[in-house]
Amino acid sequence: MRTTVGWQADRTGDALRRVPLERRDLRADDVAVRVDYCGVCHSDLHALRRAGRETPLVPGHEFTGVVTEAGSGVTRFAVGDAVAVGNIVDSCGVCPMCRRGQENFCHEFPTLTYDGTDRHDGTPTLGGYAREYVVGEGFAYPLPAGLDPAAAAPLLCAGITVWEPLRALGVGPGTRVAVAGLGGLGHLAVKLAVALGAETTVLSRTAEKAGDARRLGAHDLIVSTDEARLSAARDRFDVVVDTIAVPHDLGPYLKLVALDGTLSVVGHLGPVTVSMTDLLVGRKKLGSAGSGGRPATAAMLEFCAAHDVTADVEVVPSKQVNDVLERLGRNDVRYRFVLDLADLS
Amino acid sequence: MRTTVGWQADRTGDALRRVPLERRDLRADDVAVRVDYCGVCHSDLHALRRAGRETPLVPGHEFTGVVTEAGSGVTRFAVGDAVAVGNIVDSCGVCPMCRRGQENFCHEFPTLTYDGTDRHDGTPTLGGYAREYVVGEGFAYPLPAGLDPAAAAPLLCAGITVWEPLRALGVGPGTRVAVAGLGGLGHLAVKLAVALGAETTVLSRTAEKAGDARRLGAHDLIVSTDEARLSAARDRFDVVVDTIAVPHDLGPYLKLVALDGTLSVVGHLGPVTVSMTDLLVGRKKLGSAGSGGRPATAAMLEFCAAHDVTADVEVVPSKQVNDVLERLGRNDVRYRFVLDLADLS
Repeated sequence: MRTTVGWQADRTGDALRRVPLERRDLRADDVAVRVDYCGVCHSDLHALRRAGRETPLVPGHEFTGVVTEAGSGVTRFAVGDAVAVGNIVDSCGVCPMCRRGQENFCHEFPTLTYDGTDRHDGTPTLGGYAREYVVGEGFAYPLPAGLDPAAAAPLLCAGITVWEPLRALGVGPGTRVAVAGLGGLGHLAVKLAVALGAETTVLSRTAEKAGDARRLGAHDLIVSTDEARLSAARDRFDVVVDTIAVPHDLGPYLKLVALDGTLSVVGHLGPVTVSMTDLLVGRKKLGSAGSGGRPATAAMLEFCAAHDVTADVEVVPSKQVNDVLERLGRNDVRYRFVLDLADLS
Repeated sequence: MRTTVGWQADRTGDALRRVPLERRDLRADDVAVRVDYCGVCHSDLHALRRAGRETPLVPGHEFTGVVTEAGSGVTRFAVGDAVAVGNIVDSCGVCPMCRRGQENFCHEFPTLTYDGTDRHDGTPTLGGYAREYVVGEGFAYPLPAGLDPAAAAPLLCAGITVWEPLRALGVGPGTRVAVAGLGGLGHLAVKLAVALGAETTVLSRTAEKAGDARRLGAHDLIVSTDEARLSAARDRFDVVVDTIAVPHDLGPYLKLVALDGTLSVVGHLGPVTVSMTDLLVGRKKLGSAGSGGRPATAAMLEFCAAHDVTADVEVVPSKQVNDVLERLGRNDVRYRFVLDLADLS
């Protein structure tokens, strides 16, 4: 076993505390990664607060770092390489989804970076709020030169989660995209849609973020309580990406979707009730997406490097993690916290 | 005013009775149509049973016949032409949906063939369970030679309702389509998908309809309670057309949808609750469709003539309409009743 240090919460509601952690000895295809920066995702908060949890949790599933050691069979990485890791670290590899490069939809369920179970030894996975992570090289990605490693970390979960639907729905020049909610997911959806060449509009509860929307590259912001503007925007957007994290009525957003367009919900993932008539009129579609497959993740990182896209981040020493989670809980961040793990050395 | 004869129900729950009906004098762009055959749609039953209705109802919105008189400005039809009329007979003509040829999604709501309100004189529209109908020539379609006028009537509602999503979702050679429910809509979805070149599977509650499915051209039938076959068919179909007329769980059908595929619900149109996770895993989409625009309706009729597609119908004298509705209420039809209106002459 290897040892490292990380931030762990023992039970539901516990604060994270700094503890020594074990990592497995390297398998032939493993690399050891010194975690430099780890994004703080809403999922981390959900996992920490999940009722009845009695097993220790180390969150963190979007991180960047440097390879410090490579297993005997590793071919893609060498010591010193900059790498990135997202929210899945293994999958069956043989089901139809894995064969199509959509390991995130693996029929045996992919192995999550934390709060999962290792497919080989059955141990619980402990995440990237730690100084070291051990991962099979197939689920580590080269971090392209030119991407700031702190600002790139959130690309590995928030970024890929919005990238996959944008790509699958054919977003590009000539496409009209609206992004509902301007948070961790939303601000990256805006940047990526703009970089893909789409005419991009932000839908927000208030006009407060209009300046930010413009700075992110959006062409417009519509306040979602402005009935006149909503009415004028009926049937307007080929793709609406809904990143709102709380339950809400999808009806008003479906009205904005164009003929044969899609509302892709990536924020709140509970059950939803929709009026079939809202889908029928305009032959609209409701979809969702989350995380990403390996080819898409690698392609997104290359695209982000080529188009200078990273997250807007507030980088904080990892020892402030509990304050950060409290602030995230009340959405006090523009637009993603990233932990600097150097203070764990 | 012109007079004709039709089948009318005065209030909710009343039997239809044969009554004289008024039709408007022809406007410049109107044609008078002698209705020969009118399909009996589930919507007719819904309209007749709608609670609290106290206005007379003449159902019927998929019919074929012959032009008997043409208004002074009519250019597309002459007396003696075989025509077909569907479930909408007017629309605003200027909204974005109308301009795109999707009059069925008109922002001012299209004028329904029955149970609607004429846009010009405010009178209630009375449907095709009658010997004559007066309609603007823009909402009548040439009935292509070679299509049996009785078997073609259901194309105008059931046919176009499944045609539009099949086309919008790109169904053609190489596409894998499943059709859930083999009734009026379902059997036409099968025939049209097969004619479009798709590999087509029927999903049915029992194996009882396997022979019919094959005869309609389907390549396979999966019994929807056969867990082993359902499991093997997971993620298999690019398009699942759900024609089931009653509320049901969409989860099992979403599981059959392929990566980036769509479940198009055209049968039961009430509100539905879906698990966002069922959409997320496989980036699946839920859609709906209903009725059709004018260009698609005309194209569908040409396609059906070229590919010899019509409905499987049971043609009955219109005086049996009340028996027919009772049988339809218990799904005792393979697969569409068509009223022969000759007995009203």
